[in-house]
Amino acid sequence: MSFSQFASPISSSSSAFYGSSNLNTRTERKMSTLGRSSRICKCVATPSEKTAYTTNVTRNANMAKLQAGYLFPEIARRRTAHMQKYPDAKVISLGIGDTTEPIPEVITSAMAMKATALSTLEGYSGYGAEQGEKRLRTAIASTYYHDLGIDESDIFVSDGAKCDISRLQFLFGSNVKIAVQDPSYPVYVDTGVIMGQTGLYQKDVEKYGNIQYMRCTPENGFFPDLSTVSRADVIFFCSPNNPTGSAATREQLTELVQFAKDNGSIIVYDSAYAMFISDDSPRSIFEIPGAKEVAIETSSFSKYAGFTGVRLGWTVVPKELLFSDGFPVAKDFNRIVCTCFNGASNIAQAGALACLSPEGFKAMQDMISFYKENAHIIMDTFTSLGFDVFGGKNAPYAWVHFPGRSSWEVFAEILEKSHLVTTPGSGFGPAGDGFIRVSAFCHRGNVLEASKRLKELYK
Amino acid sequence: MSFSQFASPISSSSSAFYGSSNLNTRTERKMSTLGRSSRICKCVATPSEKTAYTTNVTRNANMAKLQAGYLFPEIARRRTAHMQKYPDAKVISLGIGDTTEPIPEVITSAMAMKATALSTLEGYSGYGAEQGEKRLRTAIASTYYHDLGIDESDIFVSDGAKCDISRLQFLFGSNVKIAVQDPSYPVYVDTGVIMGQTGLYQKDVEKYGNIQYMRCTPENGFFPDLSTVSRADVIFFCSPNNPTGSAATREQLTELVQFAKDNGSIIVYDSAYAMFISDDSPRSIFEIPGAKEVAIETSSFSKYAGFTGVRLGWTVVPKELLFSDGFPVAKDFNRIVCTCFNGASNIAQAGALACLSPEGFKAMQDMISFYKENAHIIMDTFTSLGFDVFGGKNAPYAWVHFPGRSSWEVFAEILEKSHLVTTPGSGFGPAGDGFIRVSAFCHRGNVLEASKRLKELYK
Repeated sequence: MSFSQFASPISSSSSAFYGSSNLNTRTERKMSTLGRSSRICKCVATPSEKTAYTTNVTRNANMAKLQAGYLFPEIARRRTAHMQKYPDAKVISLGIGDTTEPIPEVITSAMAMKATALSTLEGYSGYGAEQGEKRLRTAIASTYYHDLGIDESDIFVSDGAKCDISRLQFLFGSNVKIAVQDPSYPVYVDTGVIMGQTGLYQKDVEKYGNIQYMRCTPENGFFPDLSTVSRADVIFFCSPNNPTGSAATREQLTELVQFAKDNGSIIVYDSAYAMFISDDSPRSIFEIPGAKEVAIETSSFSKYAGFTGVRLGWTVVPKELLFSDGFPVAKDFNRIVCTCFNGASNIAQAGALACLSPEGFKAMQDMISFYKENAHIIMDTFTSLGFDVFGGKNAPYAWVHFPGRSSWEVFAEILEKSHLVTTPGSGFGPAGDGFIRVSAFCHRGNVLEASKRLKELYK
Repeated sequence: MSFSQFASPISSSSSAFYGSSNLNTRTERKMSTLGRSSRICKCVATPSEKTAYTTNVTRNANMAKLQAGYLFPEIARRRTAHMQKYPDAKVISLGIGDTTEPIPEVITSAMAMKATALSTLEGYSGYGAEQGEKRLRTAIASTYYHDLGIDESDIFVSDGAKCDISRLQFLFGSNVKIAVQDPSYPVYVDTGVIMGQTGLYQKDVEKYGNIQYMRCTPENGFFPDLSTVSRADVIFFCSPNNPTGSAATREQLTELVQFAKDNGSIIVYDSAYAMFISDDSPRSIFEIPGAKEVAIETSSFSKYAGFTGVRLGWTVVPKELLFSDGFPVAKDFNRIVCTCFNGASNIAQAGALACLSPEGFKAMQDMISFYKENAHIIMDTFTSLGFDVFGGKNAPYAWVHFPGRSSWEVFAEILEKSHLVTTPGSGFGPAGDGFIRVSAFCHRGNVLEASKRLKELYK
C-alpha cells in the first residue's frame, strides 16, 4: 500500500513543500492541512471521533508528575499565540537562548567538506566510536583541560549537553537524591522527575518532593549557603549559571568541591557558558584541586559556535570518579553511551574539530564577544531604568529583578506591550520568581530596538 | 590555568593530528600516547596508583545487571586484538552492520549546501523543533506512510532508531514488562535492563528475569508461536529482523496486532530494514488495520542512505495510541523528546530531506539493491557449502546455521582462520546460538574475497 509510492515517493501534496521553502509557518500549516485531508483514508479517526480502544499499559507515573510543558516549548506556544493576535507586530525574541549569528565560515566549510567527502570512497565513514572521534576528543582535552589532568579518554563527545544530562540520569537511576541550584536550567529537575528520583510536585512551595533546591538569590550572591543544604547524591551545578548569569568564584567552587567530598556526592557541573567568563572565575570545575574525584562536567559548542542546530557537546567523566563500591563512573557512562547512543553526527564532529583549530577558536571568541556586547547593552538598558540587574558580565544572560511581581506577569506585560519575548524567572525554579531572564542571543539591531522599546515601556 | 591556553588552543601534541588525517588508527594511538605522556601533570593518577577516595553514591543496580559489554563494541575489541596478533592480515568485516558505500551526491550536496548556508544570515538556523523540521516530518509521512493515516504530527525525527529506543524506554519507565524476539537487536533488552524493567541475568538460561523471550527459529519460520507467549506491556518487534533477516508476512503481522490488541500491549515495531524487502511483506506495521491503536514504529536512514555516521532516524507515535487511562502516548513521548533531546542535527535533516526527493529516493534504492546483491553472493556461498542459510532476501543479513556449535566458537574460527569478522548469533539472544550473522554491508571486492576465503575454510 504505502510502498507502491516508493518509486515516486513525493505526492503532490508534499511536493509543494519542496518548492516553497520560504513559506512561513502559518502558510505551511494551512497547506499541510489541505494536503492531508485530500489524501486521508477512511480508517483515520478524525479529531471529533472518539477512539474507544485503550491499551492496558499503565502510563508511567513519573511522567504524570511533570508540570505543564517543558518551559521553552511553553514560551514558544505563547509567542505563537501572540503573533496570531498581533500578526503585524515585529516580535523580537530575547527568550529561549537561541543563537542568532551565522557560524564562521572556517567552521561551516569544514562541515561542508566532510559532507562532500562522504560521497567518496576515501572520505566515507559509517558508525564512528560512540564516544566520539579520537582526534576530536584529544582536541577538546587539550583545548579546555590542558594541564588539568583530563585526557582524551575522559571525554565523551555527544549531540549536546541536554542529551547528556538525560543520559547521566539514565546512568544514576531512580534511587539517587539530586540537588539543584534554584533557579537553574529546568532539564536537571525534569529528567530527575522522569527518572523517578523525586516525589510529587508540591503546589504550595512549587517544588518536587525529594529534590534539594539550593536557593541562589542576590542576598547570597547567587551561591547557595551550603551550611543549610543537606546531602544529595548528585549536585547539578551550572556556572556561569543559566538563568542568573552568575559565575561561581574559585573560592566558592573550592567550597562546593569540599562540600561534595564531605558528603560523598557527585557534582554534575554544566559549563556550557564557560567561554563567556570575563573575570578570573574558573572555566572548568577541574581547575579545583580534587574535583576529579567528585565531578562530571558537561559542555557544548551550542553557545560558543552557534551550534544550537548543528548539535555537538561533550561530557567529561574522570576515571578518578568512583561509586561507593569503587566502580568507576566512567565505565558505566561508557556503557550507557554505547547502548543508548550512536555517536554525534560525523559532520557536526568535523565542525567541532574546526572550532578548535586556531582560526576556529578565534572566530568563536569573536562571536562570544559580540554576544557579550549585546549583554552589555541589555544590562545598561535595565540599569538606566532603575532595575537591579545581575549576570551579563560572565554570561549571555541578564537577570532582571521585578520585586514583588510574578515572573509570568512581567513576561506577559513585556510581550503584550513591547512585543518582546523574555523568559519568566519562575520557569527556572521558585527562587526565580520576580525575575526575568533576558538573553543576549540576538542580532544587534534587535537588541537596540528592544532597548528602545523597554525604555519606552518602563520610562 | 587551562584557559590561558584559549588564545592559542592547539598544543604541539594535538596539532600533529590536524596534519595527519590519513593516519591509521594504530599510528594515531601511538602518537597520542606519546603526546599525552609529554604533557601529563603530576595530579593524574597513573593506572597503577590506587585512588583512595570513593563517593558515597551507590552504583545503579540495574547497570550492574548488564552482562559484559554491549555486543558490537565487544566484537570491535576482538577484531582489534586479532589485528594486533596478525598485523599483516587483510581483515574483512561482515560484522557490525556498518554501511560501506559512499552516500549519493544528491544527498551529500544538500548537506554541504546546508552547512555552507549556516554561515549566512538567511541560511542560519539555531534550535529547531525538537520533533524535527516540519517539511521533513511531512516528507517522511507522505513517502513512507501515504494512505496509512499517519500524518506529519505523528512523526518524531531523531538522531537514530537506537537513540529513540532508549527514549521510548525512558517514556515507559521501570514498571513495564517487555517482550522481545529471540534473537533480536540487543538494544531492546539492554535498555530495558538499564531502565530497571528486568530481573537479574540468569546464567543457566542466558536470559534476564521478567523479559518474555519470543523464540524465533527455523522451526517456526522465525515468527514466534504467540500461543505460548504470555502478556507483556511492550513488545519489541523488528521486521525484517536483525539478525535473522526474516520479514514477517502480512498474516503474521495481523496476528501480532491482534495479539497486542487482545492483551492491551504496545508494539514497538523496528522497521529500520523495511526498504530491503523484496516480496510483498508489509513495510510498515501501520499497513495492518488497527495497528495505530497498538503500535509505535521506529526507523532510520542509516541503512537506506549510509547515514550510520550522519545520524538521522524517526519514530511514529500515532495519536490513536493510548495508555490504559486514555492518555495519549504521543503526548508523553513529545514531552520526553522536548526534555531529553534537542532535535537532530539540522545538516543531517537537510540530508534526509534530500533522501526523500525523487532523485535521492532513487539513489537510496540503488544503494539498497547493491547491498542486496552482496547478500545474494553471501547466501550462495554458504548454500553451496551445504549450510542452511536464512534471511538475505528481504534484509542485508544472512543468518547461517552451524548446528551443535557455539556462535562465539564459530565466530572465533572464521576470524582466526579466514580473517573475517562476523557476528555471533548468541549475541542477539539465546535462540541465536548456533548461528552467525553475516552482514552484506561491504564493498563488492570484499564480499567476493570473503566468499573465496569461506569456500576455502569450509570446502
